[in-house]
Amino acid sequence: MPLQLGVCDYPEQVSAEEWNVFPQQMREMGLSYVRLGEFAWSTLEPEPGKFDFTWLDNAITALQAQKLQVVLCTPTATPPAWLVEAHPEILPVDIHGNTRVFGSRRHYDFSSDVYWQESARIIEILAKRYGQHPAVVGWQTDNEYGCHDTTRSYSLAAKTKFQAWLEQKYQRIEMLNTAWGNTFWSQTYTHWQRIGLPNQTVTEANPSHLLDFYRFSSDQVVAYDKMQCEILRQHSPNRFVTHNFMLFFADFDLYKASAHLDFVSWDNYPTGMLELSGAFEQTKIDFARTGHPDYVSFNHDLFRGLKNKPFWVMEQQCGHVNWSPYNPLPAPGAVRLWTLQAMSHGANVVTYFRWQAARAAQENYHSGLLRHNGRFDRGAYEVMRLSPHLKKLSDALEAKKVCLLHDYESMWAYDMQKHHKNTSYWAQMLMYYSSLRQMGVDVDIVHPMSDLTGYQLIIAPALMIASDELADHLEHYAQQGATIVFGTRTGFRTPSGAVPAQGAPGAISRLVGITIKNFDSMRPGLNSRIEAFDQSFQTHTWNESLELLVNGVRSLGMYHDDPLYSEIAISYRAINDGGAMYIGVWGDAIIRRCLEYALFRAGLTYEELEPGLRLTRRGGLVYAQNWTRGGISLPLPPETQFVYGDSLIEPFGVAVYKDKP
Amino acid sequence: MPLQLGVCDYPEQVSAEEWNVFPQQMREMGLSYVRLGEFAWSTLEPEPGKFDFTWLDNAITALQAQKLQVVLCTPTATPPAWLVEAHPEILPVDIHGNTRVFGSRRHYDFSSDVYWQESARIIEILAKRYGQHPAVVGWQTDNEYGCHDTTRSYSLAAKTKFQAWLEQKYQRIEMLNTAWGNTFWSQTYTHWQRIGLPNQTVTEANPSHLLDFYRFSSDQVVAYDKMQCEILRQHSPNRFVTHNFMLFFADFDLYKASAHLDFVSWDNYPTGMLELSGAFEQTKIDFARTGHPDYVSFNHDLFRGLKNKPFWVMEQQCGHVNWSPYNPLPAPGAVRLWTLQAMSHGANVVTYFRWQAARAAQENYHSGLLRHNGRFDRGAYEVMRLSPHLKKLSDALEAKKVCLLHDYESMWAYDMQKHHKNTSYWAQMLMYYSSLRQMGVDVDIVHPMSDLTGYQLIIAPALMIASDELADHLEHYAQQGATIVFGTRTGFRTPSGAVPAQGAPGAISRLVGITIKNFDSMRPGLNSRIEAFDQSFQTHTWNESLELLVNGVRSLGMYHDDPLYSEIAISYRAINDGGAMYIGVWGDAIIRRCLEYALFRAGLTYEELEPGLRLTRRGGLVYAQNWTRGGISLPLPPETQFVYGDSLIEPFGVAVYKDKP
Amino acid sequence: MPLQLGVCDYPEQVSAEEWNVFPQQMREMGLSYVRLGEFAWSTLEPEPGKFDFTWLDNAITALQAQKLQVVLCTPTATPPAWLVEAHPEILPVDIHGNTRVFGSRRHYDFSSDVYWQESARIIEILAKRYGQHPAVVGWQTDNEYGCHDTTRSYSLAAKTKFQAWLEQKYQRIEMLNTAWGNTFWSQTYTHWQRIGLPNQTVTEANPSHLLDFYRFSSDQVVAYDKMQCEILRQHSPNRFVTHNFMLFFADFDLYKASAHLDFVSWDNYPTGMLELSGAFEQTKIDFARTGHPDYVSFNHDLFRGLKNKPFWVMEQQCGHVNWSPYNPLPAPGAVRLWTLQAMSHGANVVTYFRWQAARAAQENYHSGLLRHNGRFDRGAYEVMRLSPHLKKLSDALEAKKVCLLHDYESMWAYDMQKHHKNTSYWAQMLMYYSSLRQMGVDVDIVHPMSDLTGYQLIIAPALMIASDELADHLEHYAQQGATIVFGTRTGFRTPSGAVPAQGAPGAISRLVGITIKNFDSMRPGLNSRIEAFDQSFQTHTWNESLELLVNGVRSLGMYHDDPLYSEIAISYRAINDGGAMYIGVWGDAIIRRCLEYALFRAGLTYEELEPGLRLTRRGGLVYAQNWTRGGISLPLPPETQFVYGDSLIEPFGVAVYKDKP
Repeated sequence: MPLQLGVCDYPEQVSAEEWNVFPQQMREMGLSYVRLGEFAWSTLEPEPGKFDFTWLDNAITALQAQKLQVVLCTPTATPPAWLVEAHPEILPVDIHGNTRVFGSRRHYDFSSDVYWQESARIIEILAKRYGQHPAVVGWQTDNEYGCHDTTRSYSLAAKTKFQAWLEQKYQRIEMLNTAWGNTFWSQTYTHWQRIGLPNQTVTEANPSHLLDFYRFSSDQVVAYDKMQCEILRQHSPNRFVTHNFMLFFADFDLYKASAHLDFVSWDNYPTGMLELSGAFEQTKIDFARTGHPDYVSFNHDLFRGLKNKPFWVMEQQCGHVNWSPYNPLPAPGAVRLWTLQAMSHGANVVTYFRWQAARAAQENYHSGLLRHNGRFDRGAYEVMRLSPHLKKLSDALEAKKVCLLHDYESMWAYDMQKHHKNTSYWAQMLMYYSSLRQMGVDVDIVHPMSDLTGYQLIIAPALMIASDELADHLEHYAQQGATIVFGTRTGFRTPSGAVPAQGAPGAISRLVGITIKNFDSMRPGLNSRIEAFDQSFQTHTWNESLELLVNGVRSLGMYHDDPLYSEIAISYRAINDGGAMYIGVWGDAIIRRCLEYALFRAGLTYEELEPGLRLTRRGGLVYAQNWTRGGISLPLPPETQFVYGDSLIEPFGVAVYKDKP
Repeated sequence: MPLQLGVCDYPEQVSAEEWNVFPQQMREMGLSYVRLGEFAWSTLEPEPGKFDFTWLDNAITALQAQKLQVVLCTPTATPPAWLVEAHPEILPVDIHGNTRVFGSRRHYDFSSDVYWQESARIIEILAKRYGQHPAVVGWQTDNEYGCHDTTRSYSLAAKTKFQAWLEQKYQRIEMLNTAWGNTFWSQTYTHWQRIGLPNQTVTEANPSHLLDFYRFSSDQVVAYDKMQCEILRQHSPNRFVTHNFMLFFADFDLYKASAHLDFVSWDNYPTGMLELSGAFEQTKIDFARTGHPDYVSFNHDLFRGLKNKPFWVMEQQCGHVNWSPYNPLPAPGAVRLWTLQAMSHGANVVTYFRWQAARAAQENYHSGLLRHNGRFDRGAYEVMRLSPHLKKLSDALEAKKVCLLHDYESMWAYDMQKHHKNTSYWAQMLMYYSSLRQMGVDVDIVHPMSDLTGYQLIIAPALMIASDELADHLEHYAQQGATIVFGTRTGFRTPSGAVPAQGAPGAISRLVGITIKNFDSMRPGLNSRIEAFDQSFQTHTWNESLELLVNGVRSLGMYHDDPLYSEIAISYRAINDGGAMYIGVWGDAIIRRCLEYALFRAGLTYEELEPGLRLTRRGGLVYAQNWTRGGISLPLPPETQFVYGDSLIEPFGVAVYKDKP
Repeated sequence: MPLQLGVCDYPEQVSAEEWNVFPQQMREMGLSYVRLGEFAWSTLEPEPGKFDFTWLDNAITALQAQKLQVVLCTPTATPPAWLVEAHPEILPVDIHGNTRVFGSRRHYDFSSDVYWQESARIIEILAKRYGQHPAVVGWQTDNEYGCHDTTRSYSLAAKTKFQAWLEQKYQRIEMLNTAWGNTFWSQTYTHWQRIGLPNQTVTEANPSHLLDFYRFSSDQVVAYDKMQCEILRQHSPNRFVTHNFMLFFADFDLYKASAHLDFVSWDNYPTGMLELSGAFEQTKIDFARTGHPDYVSFNHDLFRGLKNKPFWVMEQQCGHVNWSPYNPLPAPGAVRLWTLQAMSHGANVVTYFRWQAARAAQENYHSGLLRHNGRFDRGAYEVMRLSPHLKKLSDALEAKKVCLLHDYESMWAYDMQKHHKNTSYWAQMLMYYSSLRQMGVDVDIVHPMSDLTGYQLIIAPALMIASDELADHLEHYAQQGATIVFGTRTGFRTPSGAVPAQGAPGAISRLVGITIKNFDSMRPGLNSRIEAFDQSFQTHTWNESLELLVNGVRSLGMYHDDPLYSEIAISYRAINDGGAMYIGVWGDAIIRRCLEYALFRAGLTYEELEPGLRLTRRGGLVYAQNWTRGGISLPLPPETQFVYGDSLIEPFGVAVYKDKP
């Protein structure tokens, strides 16, 4: 199947006269898919039970006439005013105990039974009406679950369901008391209904209480989406169902939330993503007009890994956004760069957001392929020039030799108790990911418990929660020859959120053959040095000292400064043909050096890429991306076969060529 | 009429014995007016219906004996405890939904019917008793409407009245849905009573919803003040009515709020104004002890322009304030400098705040003309030395040749969706205003729809909202020979808050002959360059690219950098003897250069003033103000006739001389 | 009595099997005391009236078997879930009006009658059961009163009791109106029940209202603690009662709160204390691993001064903490350094927090003497090495010649109206304290109204509130030959929170012989210069100008810059053999120079210590502490007799030697 393009459109937001010319323009631009309807509930059903489908019928017919395929959405992200008036109890409650009201979007509580019923009703009506329409090829459920901090609601409904969820999980309340360590501050419970939500406490809540509340809230989203999927599948057979997830999203478990989908899609906004990130100011300036390559591709790799298959970019930035503190114009070429990058990492379809810039309401500063006045904006020209070339690309995925392990529960545990203001789980993950990408190494990002067969190097940058089952699972691959690398805070917590009785890294200890003695959270300006690989490296932010527990584990690096002078910072244990490394420090240079060593041990090669150059491999092709303002010349043999561009890549340009076998 | 001085005094706050010496001291200092009573309700009416007027009777009599004239205030800014106890529903509600309680000031809701009744009652009693007293020459209504964020209340009363206001405005709810673009996020309404206030939404509210709520809240203040005025006029004939507005105030429409007043007055606190502004740190340090000249005079010009007539400074800082993060002593001479600056910009009376520093309650760190212990403070000596000279000054206003257009709705629309964290409507206005003042150009600041006859140069720095009516109005003056300059974001919105269908600058497009292609919100550190007037200029913060639509429009500057390389940044169109310029960039140097060009086109001259020198013209006199720590020598011909000072101006000094005819 | 060590332990948080080895380990480490039970209510009484004492009986018996002495705690800091369910009205209300719920600790309101009854019930049960147990030597009431901002509750119960407290204090409401200056913003009250709490006002509340609310809230804590003490003393005769106060704590009056205790104890966390302080970034980096010596010893001196007797450190940091933005490992030697520093300043017992690091709940990142896995952590080894040496130290206190005056009401008045964003009462105190410590001067910190006999130099850095009684008291000591030094803002307020009628320094004016003319709050970057002691000094932050009122007062320094050019900055008045100095500026160098002059006038000597060296004297011994990363060599005569260490002090080391008589 060729790689394809699409766009998000809103016929209900402009007049029929204005909209009439759009379908032909879309086809001529080379688009194949049009997403419709995710905020259209009040247009479809202006009063309870009174429907107006004409506009949507007409739009689908007109798109079909241009051979465009329709992705229809369930409109549940925006319950209408009449529904909120009739059932104010569907409104969510924020962490301060305030009800969040009608007037924007996502004003519903995942724990509201009424809202489940109303959602099911409108979805069934839409699925019955459009589910077998030949132009409708698939569905998107709702829109960006969790956006605007809506995963967790602190309502009475949530509290009641949380208590039931806890009873279901622990069966006996003594089990909960033990798991949470409730003797600590006299928190022991004797009845389920005495357990509150972990907000509005005098000081911080018990992290185990928080962890279970996060799990519960995540499960509520997953269950709600499953309900949507089941109705759609019943009435709309042979159509795909997906959901458009958000970048760097952290509030529910995307592995669980994507399990019942046909494929994953996500919304890719590179410039706003960088501006809102924790990157250095200079990085934000340097990449202001493109976003940072590794921040974007990290998400691609993560979303591909959710189901280990190709995905869609359901909303692709194609001009400036409106929701960041600063919203610059993209660089010339950026839309092409983002589109090809997405495809090189496994996107089969890239759908731009949005066709025409909205003239009214909250997003009236956001751009589209068309300007507010209907004329083509800068991004549209890039799409027009690019689209004819896509048929030369392949949709086959390449098997990778390196993977990063990622799980949401480790992220929750990490970020709810940072112990250092400037750290985060994502920051620690990216430190490893970006090192690999700078070496031209393609990686999968997968769940720790997934099948890891075939990976020669397995990297677990921040596997905060470790169970015995996980340790067994990883040991299996080490025994079979894989090299496994662990970062700081590995196994700092058991699944219940407690410190393991044997200390960190808990269950992982027997695999790496070390135990953590001390961890050191260093403020900005307070650094440390280690000696490793015959060099001296600066470390910052976080140090751990290791004790070697078994024969055959050896030190790869030692602290050179107080307070950890002469303690071990990095360890390596050979296991059959593989091995296990533990990296107890933060620091770009030392982590890069450790990964070079690990790649070597794993029998893998890497290269030193020019700054701002990124290489990605898919379907036998190499996509060379230039993320800089200057030209880059690729040092390739003259016989290289180019599918797109050539060896001199213009600023923000892309060259695609056949990989050496 | 000579220019005069006054002071704010609070006889109710000190013992009669202590107060007895004040009237004579005031007269001897050269003061003419004394403002009384704006916070005296609980002293006048300690229990409902029980009054104590003795203290006020005595005070007025004693002031009259010294030939001092009294400005009496309605005491409605501070409803007494017994009123709040009897009617807690008069309390306002903040944006988070919390009721704001008794214990400071301004604890009332403009939408409370009960509070209107109670206000009318106490005002009528006071107006009847004092309205024809020979010493009482005028009234101030309430005090600083809107202070402490009190314009907008999120109460049930406000909600009900807002719904009625909307119904009155739109008549049919479909009109409101269209105006607000409510299909956007399924926000369509079918009943007025389903429309809530735009607070506590999950994410930002619809900007059109906000804009109408801001208009409604503004109208509530205006109507409340009109009610006060009508009662006063009925019972106190031949006395003026004014209100003391606040500097850089943004929450209600001052053109509407001043329409029914006899003249405008405002409260001038230069040092705190600068400290709370968005000025650079170094500017805050350099002008810490005087405030910035242009920030202060911008307000003078704005308040003069509200009714296009002389105004009062009702509260003039005469020592340090207490409400800023840092509260330095004013420079020696600052009180004189501020007083003469005010008069040069159109103040007929400057009234100092306050006579004696308060020893108790919230403002006990604030200074007065008298120290806490009753001795003269530093400012008092400056006033004593200055007051004899005022009779040499003239109260005539000079007609200006240059005006700046300003309207509150454009400000609301601009600031509610900044699209760049560091911009603001005031910042954009001041960039233009300060350039002109550095060139010695006197300007009026007027409403865009006012009569602009006589202005050779009309500058619209930030006319965000543009209607066809406004475009017709401005075109009229361009046809008649005026040069009109527009800044960024002109016409970005229609009066309903939507983007114009033809794109920006909307209705203004046909006047300037261009359309905006792209706008670019640049983060700090991300700059751009343009070529204009044979020079290269750096731009920052905000770029727009222009497309020329008609013959005769030409480019004055082009971008030199990606992403807008070769796009047009500045345009000029000759229209009869006048013209229309569009400046699509931010940057002090380029805006200064464009204004030089516009002054030249308009046939006006300007000069290059020494840093920190400001010249203002009134009544045939030039007021030369030295805002620096060093002396300034004015390069004037020897025959120059000085009314005050001479050509060598001491630090923070003022010289006044006869203008060349 | 020898100086001794102890530890805080939680037998209820680990299994009996795990805990069994602890008592012997504790004894072998050289510990004498074990604190138990402050969070154990829900373990002791899992359901109302159902008790489980077995675990505690066993623990005490096991500790007793190792000759360890037990400090038992009342468990009232953590009411159980069943109590909150039965009586939700015991929950406190925060300043925003939100109820603070169950789920962490300190979730009770000091004004709740029900909570007093429940507290009395559980304390009586525990005191009866354990109060005469031979191993139980004393009690700690509750835990860290006021932690997490819990002194002040804005509940209905607090409001009702506050109204009664006010009526009790003022008797007639006119007295309250006068004291608070309620005419100011029409705040006059005619009924006690109309007086609200000073939260949720439109803008800031009346500072006199705040001051009385702070006093009331403080009194509530004191009364609650007294109630606890009385029950304990009744049922547990011949045992001490103490409470563990917090460092730099500001919310209630510790002089009143410690009056009924046998001795004071406090919780010493040097690294987190520095990180959360207002110290410069570079200071935070330099002392990140030890905390700053003067911040720590300031607290020691303050807590010793509360009752002018030896104290306990009830919780001593012995590894990293978990509650600071950054939580570094302590330097090697830091635990020893802190322990000996505490003892040198008057601690008789230092009790480490905690025995084993908690594996569950909120503090699972906090360290203990034992790691999470039960092995000795770094601090344990320091304790083991140190404990045998303690018997060589003496518990006698040295009489000091210099004292600093400190009172909580001055701090409240200072900090509730800073008038300069970056100032604080503690910052002003520490500017004086740290100067003295850098000169090797030992000081007492005492209440201004305490017996000051014997002090040759009395320093009042920030005596904001001054009464006539206080002025008489201080004048007495000046007459008798003491030198008294006053800092800025002295006597700025009367006890009712008003400015004195004669201006500042109010009642102190007649003692120092000056009055304050102006005060100048200077923003960062705005400085001033004075000429003093034939040198020029920079001042910053705060200037005051003085007027000399009587013969014999002379200027020690004058401003050299506008706006205070030629005004007096510092004054000195000789009184008999003593004198009174007023220092009207901020600035490390000038304050240091003034203190040198004052020490000289008082006939006292001082020395210039090497940076990072601190000397403290106790029991005839000098404790020389090295707070730096480098060695320090003490220039001592060869005959010096060392009790611990020698004249070459290692990094973070301590030497103890016999003082010259």
